[in-house]
Amino acid sequence: MTTTVLLLTPDPAQSAALAAVVQAAAPELTLLTDHRALDDAQLAAIDVVLGWRLPPGLAGRLTRLRWVCSMAAGVEKLLVPDLAPGVPMSRVVDPEQALGISQYVALMCLRHARTLPLYEAQQMERRWTRHPLPAARHRIGMLGWGEVGRAAAAPLQALGFEVAPWRRDSGALHALLGRCQIVVIALPLTPETSGLLDAAAFAAMPRGAYLINVARGGHIVETDLIAAVQSGHLAGAALDVQQHEPLPADDPLWGVPGITITPHIAAQPSHETVARQFVAGLRCLQAGRPLPNAVDRGRGY
Amino acid sequence: MTTTVLLLTPDPAQSAALAAVVQAAAPELTLLTDHRALDDAQLAAIDVVLGWRLPPGLAGRLTRLRWVCSMAAGVEKLLVPDLAPGVPMSRVVDPEQALGISQYVALMCLRHARTLPLYEAQQMERRWTRHPLPAARHRIGMLGWGEVGRAAAAPLQALGFEVAPWRRDSGALHALLGRCQIVVIALPLTPETSGLLDAAAFAAMPRGAYLINVARGGHIVETDLIAAVQSGHLAGAALDVQQHEPLPADDPLWGVPGITITPHIAAQPSHETVARQFVAGLRCLQAGRPLPNAVDRGRGY
Repeated sequence: MTTTVLLLTPDPAQSAALAAVVQAAAPELTLLTDHRALDDAQLAAIDVVLGWRLPPGLAGRLTRLRWVCSMAAGVEKLLVPDLAPGVPMSRVVDPEQALGISQYVALMCLRHARTLPLYEAQQMERRWTRHPLPAARHRIGMLGWGEVGRAAAAPLQALGFEVAPWRRDSGALHALLGRCQIVVIALPLTPETSGLLDAAAFAAMPRGAYLINVARGGHIVETDLIAAVQSGHLAGAALDVQQHEPLPADDPLWGVPGITITPHIAAQPSHETVARQFVAGLRCLQAGRPLPNAVDRGRGY
Repeated sequence: MTTTVLLLTPDPAQSAALAAVVQAAAPELTLLTDHRALDDAQLAAIDVVLGWRLPPGLAGRLTRLRWVCSMAAGVEKLLVPDLAPGVPMSRVVDPEQALGISQYVALMCLRHARTLPLYEAQQMERRWTRHPLPAARHRIGMLGWGEVGRAAAAPLQALGFEVAPWRRDSGALHALLGRCQIVVIALPLTPETSGLLDAAAFAAMPRGAYLINVARGGHIVETDLIAAVQSGHLAGAALDVQQHEPLPADDPLWGVPGITITPHIAAQPSHETVARQFVAGLRCLQAGRPLPNAVDRGRGY
């Protein structure tokens, strides 16, 4: 009997490209890419989901589901209430994705620490004026010390920054925030970390501090961030993720001086890595061996 | 008999600040900061010059000169024709300066490799659109493999880039340029390296390549660079140094899309490091021991 896999990626072109790579790696699989075109019987024949998000109402109809494989490091959009409790979940851990995020974090730390926007503005005015180096050795608070946080820390240290890690079980978040000139969010989004960066957290950060988010928009209370930047307390933020993606054109985040918006590009999963790790996980499932990179559904990561 | 030191820094405020730190480290020294106010007898009493540039005609009047200490890694502006052949030269090697340059290089490599200007332009239009990651693993040609080039290479490697070093004795510069998506200039400026990056060098670089200069403006034939960028062959350049500094407002470099101008801010020497290494060098001179970080005047670095 064939194994039926449903691919759930945000856009059809991406699904088709990924499906081709997965099919090449495991020709015996039946791959489905458009769940909206499937009836109940077809949905009930699905063994495995590969994706980053389960749309509302879908999981309850996947009555034969045996495995959910996340393409993203964050699994909060797969942990839906109607997903049957016994279904195991794991995720693709792409070293290239961790590298991509570490590049983005280093870029945004350096751009802020070396005041690049100031010199870009001077170039517009053809003005060649040096300013004292503010503090090339900023202390960077790394919120989250999983694959992503650790991968991002190494190049930052090679660039002369001090990295102060924080994990949820470290406690005393506001005390750490108070010691950091830059704060990077690399946490999983769970009920405990949702809205963690709020007005009180921003008030705990020193004046002129800078925020970088490569995790999930839900970690930040965006209206509080806008207020903290507009008041001048925070220097700004680089947000690769937002509460609403794609960010609507009328979202106030777009127009706040000091806030940089990028469209979730810090890491882009490679189809080859996703396919390779997915098929390796599938072989474990078929052989009854433990899944690599298993997610603790209770903990949320 | 006291030792008389002439400080030659570009601006008076900097001279006064540096003089205070040097004087604190070696109270017995006589420090002079304004050579234009000195007559021939006073100039003939100077034992040591600390600075980065000997103005035309000055060196010939420093008849007692026993040592030239460079505050900068590049010494080409101290190697003037009227400097007596026997006067030894050394330089301050500031690990913080190498770090500052490595931060600048990493910033400009990442900004180009991760197409930050594209996303900044999209933000102006409130447009949330992803583009495929061009090539996060660019190969970077590092022209110059001294303190600066080696210091800059380490964080680039931690960020997933391949660094291809080139030294003047490596030869085959154009072959190396042809294999690199980014080229960083970290060479001393000597008669052999002056104008090294010219139209032929740019033609050897692959289409879409990017140039970063943290060395000296004289390494680049600026009119050739402008032509290579305007033709679309090169994607652009980040120039922390230019032939004419401060860069005049009417210089064409300012207005070329793709070319980023910064006012020689990659590294800024710390007065404390300069003073400490200068005094350590002075003690060697006084004791007849070899000078640390001696410059080979014939070689030019």
